[in-house]
Amino acid sequence: MKLLIYNTLSRTKENFLPLKKGEVGIYVCGPTVYGDSHIGHAKSYVSFDIIVRYLRYSGYKVKYVQNITDVGHLVGDIDEGEDKIEKQSKLEKKHPMEIAELYTQSYFSDMDKLNILRPNISPRATGHITEQIEMVKNLISKGFAYEVNGSVYFEVNKFKGYGKLSNRKVDELSEGTRIVVSKEKRHSADFALWKKAEKGHIMQWQSPWGNGYPGWHLECSAMSIKYLGESFDIHGGGIENQFPHHECEIAQSEAVTKKPFVKYWLHNNMVTVDGKKMGKSLGNFTTLKQAFKKFNPLEIRFFILQSHYRSTLDFSETAIEGAKKGYEKLLNVYSQLKKFCENKNYGEVSISLKKYNDDFITAMNDDFNTPQAIAVMFDLSKEIYKITSSENLLNKKSTTDVLQFITEKGKDILGLFSDENLKTESAIDKELIELLIQTRNEARKLKQFSLSDFIRNNLSKLGIILEDKKDKTEWKKKK
Amino acid sequence: MKLLIYNTLSRTKENFLPLKKGEVGIYVCGPTVYGDSHIGHAKSYVSFDIIVRYLRYSGYKVKYVQNITDVGHLVGDIDEGEDKIEKQSKLEKKHPMEIAELYTQSYFSDMDKLNILRPNISPRATGHITEQIEMVKNLISKGFAYEVNGSVYFEVNKFKGYGKLSNRKVDELSEGTRIVVSKEKRHSADFALWKKAEKGHIMQWQSPWGNGYPGWHLECSAMSIKYLGESFDIHGGGIENQFPHHECEIAQSEAVTKKPFVKYWLHNNMVTVDGKKMGKSLGNFTTLKQAFKKFNPLEIRFFILQSHYRSTLDFSETAIEGAKKGYEKLLNVYSQLKKFCENKNYGEVSISLKKYNDDFITAMNDDFNTPQAIAVMFDLSKEIYKITSSENLLNKKSTTDVLQFITEKGKDILGLFSDENLKTESAIDKELIELLIQTRNEARKLKQFSLSDFIRNNLSKLGIILEDKKDKTEWKKKK
Repeated sequence: MKLLIYNTLSRTKENFLPLKKGEVGIYVCGPTVYGDSHIGHAKSYVSFDIIVRYLRYSGYKVKYVQNITDVGHLVGDIDEGEDKIEKQSKLEKKHPMEIAELYTQSYFSDMDKLNILRPNISPRATGHITEQIEMVKNLISKGFAYEVNGSVYFEVNKFKGYGKLSNRKVDELSEGTRIVVSKEKRHSADFALWKKAEKGHIMQWQSPWGNGYPGWHLECSAMSIKYLGESFDIHGGGIENQFPHHECEIAQSEAVTKKPFVKYWLHNNMVTVDGKKMGKSLGNFTTLKQAFKKFNPLEIRFFILQSHYRSTLDFSETAIEGAKKGYEKLLNVYSQLKKFCENKNYGEVSISLKKYNDDFITAMNDDFNTPQAIAVMFDLSKEIYKITSSENLLNKKSTTDVLQFITEKGKDILGLFSDENLKTESAIDKELIELLIQTRNEARKLKQFSLSDFIRNNLSKLGIILEDKKDKTEWKKKK
Repeated sequence: MKLLIYNTLSRTKENFLPLKKGEVGIYVCGPTVYGDSHIGHAKSYVSFDIIVRYLRYSGYKVKYVQNITDVGHLVGDIDEGEDKIEKQSKLEKKHPMEIAELYTQSYFSDMDKLNILRPNISPRATGHITEQIEMVKNLISKGFAYEVNGSVYFEVNKFKGYGKLSNRKVDELSEGTRIVVSKEKRHSADFALWKKAEKGHIMQWQSPWGNGYPGWHLECSAMSIKYLGESFDIHGGGIENQFPHHECEIAQSEAVTKKPFVKYWLHNNMVTVDGKKMGKSLGNFTTLKQAFKKFNPLEIRFFILQSHYRSTLDFSETAIEGAKKGYEKLLNVYSQLKKFCENKNYGEVSISLKKYNDDFITAMNDDFNTPQAIAVMFDLSKEIYKITSSENLLNKKSTTDVLQFITEKGKDILGLFSDENLKTESAIDKELIELLIQTRNEARKLKQFSLSDFIRNNLSKLGIILEDKKDKTEWKKKK
């Protein structure tokens, strides 16, 4: 079966054929580390985590590079305004590198909780100043860039392909756009490769053009080429970075190497709140740390994967609540099967996995269609539930096969279950509480009310409240 | 009370007086990231973690910088041999930066488990090539360094203070040592600031002297000065790095700045195995990941803190087993008190903490004497145990005060307890199992044997086996 990937460059789904047989190089634009990550970041990095996981599952040796932007990303995004990290460093009264350190840690800590695999290399922009300066020198010597007052700009009119990713024409960019035209630029679409450090700018380095710092777009070209080569397979990022960021990356990279920069451009869509993009600058964001207080991180992961990476995802707590219910159903089936297997608790029913397997792979091969893949998981869980809620159980082979299917698909590819998570969700204490409730019910049947009160009172001391409902006893933790 | 710190420069304990009132800048030599950390690393970084924690507790605003060496550390240590990271990258068939990434993650993951606070900045050597090149240029222009065949060496005879940390004389260094004399060096004690990249060397950068990479010692000077200033308070590291590493740092830094580089040099002693230094190159090491399989990381932390940071620590599993017992005693007292406090379970006994407090602070002020500080914690726990094992309990004020003492001293300063750790040790499931055992005993008293069997059988299904002993019922997990 062939893997189809939607390539923004061609605006079609294409057969995936890597440049080098059996190997995939992938670069994904990472975070600018000046604040805690929000749900929007989670969608981006969960999306590419799935892609990396699935490519590995499909047998490719994947080298995954994702940068950390710790310099050069300006508040105005387009060559204007304060450096985002320096701005934050003034607010927090810390060195910019402390800010970068703090929020890099915060980022990885959140991503780890979302069960996102670490990239193979997480290069920092400040860690590649030499490489960036070399690239600027190269672009000037080849006639693609010019220096003005200690800053260096890329001249878009010199590069024929400018606009090929975002389907824009250089001529149109000069009119109608709201780009602040810097007087230093020959064309309003020209972009900074190197910026002169203004007075008081902390993050600065010596260069042939005086002290300064790299332009935002440059780091991605310098670092992706360094670690993945002059041409590589996949470049990913948020849809909002198609232009100008990725367009600029293509221009500066191909101008230097004279080779196609990237074969497949993949863009994930955004998280919206009431239809508007969730963004740090828009102020309508929910940080992951906030969200993790209410939801298990894997419930959020599941919520994200229930929509396709190229679709928008409208965020609300109600929507996650809904996803959570579905997630728990899958988790329960998995936990239950694991227990059956551990306790060698088998019946006679057998089940065929071929269709589920085919459907799952078909879904994932269709541009990583995770909602469809999850639907397959649900179909399987329904069939299993039907069996286990009857008087019979799956036989040994089917139990093992289904468990392997769920491990491979749900745990390894979709990353929905972790050992930690299973331990928490199916933790022994839940079962112990259930056992105490059953014991209490037995005691009441036997009219041993002192004993049933003993259980209720001691559970209460441990912070667990029992509530007798019509036909069953429920429990909750004391607030 | 004054804080005394043993300064290797003066070979005496000195009053600690930071350069800027109320603030401390501290730099500690971090790991070379080409393998998993071992017990020896744990001792180094636990030692400096304590120092940082105690300085913060004492009211200082501490900026803690600890580097990550990801280039330039050669197998021969002294300007000879393969780069350690490149060597490992060939073994693992990965890019050197993947090796650095992998083992940096591994390092922080282990340190997090040991409850070591993250440094404020963890600069990477490869992330500061520009700064290092600037420093070399500066040293050449000031006459302290010379270039030969694309490599640059520091000329120790030009710097008068060379040897002042390790009490060595340059003249003596030329004789009797086993340093491989490079033909390029004017004096055998000269050291590389920049090394020409030989054919096939992957980690290399353009420089005024051709393609190459920084010498091992250089990064620490460039990065400490960048983030802490030309003179700063404390530089820490392993005793084995006094010479040549720290001696070279002083030489190159003071030659550039003409200022005293570091006010207090602190060196931690090593971990030994049967009297010999534990080291990666010696092959007698136990990685932390191995050790964590047998011991709770905080037991290892406790084991380390039971000896002074300037003493050697002989490692054996038996020794950790011994420490573990002591640790559990402290943990139990703390857990028990927390529970008393949560359940408002108080008696009438009061306790005076003044002496414990004074003794603890006296110990820590005496060059961070953690074994002595831990002894104070034990004295207190003995007094508490004596009380709680009688018929009475501490009164409310004393319970709260002791809890605060243990939190402040044991948790915040010594880092011996974490919320996670306490949760594990006093986990609710243990209490639920105890409650089920009690319920079963009640049922048996009431001669409700069907109920007591119900509990036993259902616990068994959950993998918990009850064993009725003479006077109590014990439980264990099914293997």
